[in-house]
Amino acid sequence: MTENWIDAIKWDAQGLVPVIAQEKGSQDILMFAWMNREALQKTAELGRAVYFSRARGKLWFKGEESGHVQTVHSIRTDCDNDVVLLEVTQLGHEPGIACHTGRHSCFFQKLENGQWQATEPVLKNPEHIYK
Amino acid sequence: MTENWIDAIKWDAQGLVPVIAQEKGSQDILMFAWMNREALQKTAELGRAVYFSRARGKLWFKGEESGHVQTVHSIRTDCDNDVVLLEVTQLGHEPGIACHTGRHSCFFQKLENGQWQATEPVLKNPEHIYK
Repeated sequence: MTENWIDAIKWDAQGLVPVIAQEKGSQDILMFAWMNREALQKTAELGRAVYFSRARGKLWFKGEESGHVQTVHSIRTDCDNDVVLLEVTQLGHEPGIACHTGRHSCFFQKLENGQWQATEPVLKNPEHIYK
Repeated sequence: MTENWIDAIKWDAQGLVPVIAQEKGSQDILMFAWMNREALQKTAELGRAVYFSRARGKLWFKGEESGHVQTVHSIRTDCDNDVVLLEVTQLGHEPGIACHTGRHSCFFQKLENGQWQATEPVLKNPEHIYK
């Protein structure tokens, strides 16, 4: 154990760590994203999910545009300290929408008979999420 | 949709994709690993989890040493086609052991009061798993 818990995390060559967001209660896996050190620190401080957007190259306060904020109940890491697992409540819509496509979960494409099939409904038109 | 489902996957610069293994029934997240194209193809063909070991630089037939094979019930990908989610049954021990530390899940370290606390028991001594 190091004095500062965040020093135990093993960041990749880009200074990032993969993050899984799992919904409290349903235990559905809502999304997968990345964090840098600052994002993980902010997540722990604020009790809400803060990721690092690789596309935009900056912190991404989940819900900052969509309103689909994630409250964080627990933070776990794995045996190698190089993956983070968040237990979250997905706010901003009922049922919760974590995906930018307007679906509950980002993992809505299932392999069936050699094809990816969309298995979850769009709960809200993305055009109405991102104004 | 491409003709071959595997062509839809977006591999990273190393030709890999992150993979989450979630236990069918409990919905526990057991582990996180990586696959290359061959590993994902084999996983789909065999119905058992085949990862790519970055440390060893080769295919890793989960359970090949430990006997802790994972049967794969479904394969999903996310909205960006760059993460894979497996629904698995963890074989080889009751309750299932996915982690090389002898625990059910690799995500046994939970942040509590500013420290990582081990929250799951060791179900089998790793020295007896890897002979």
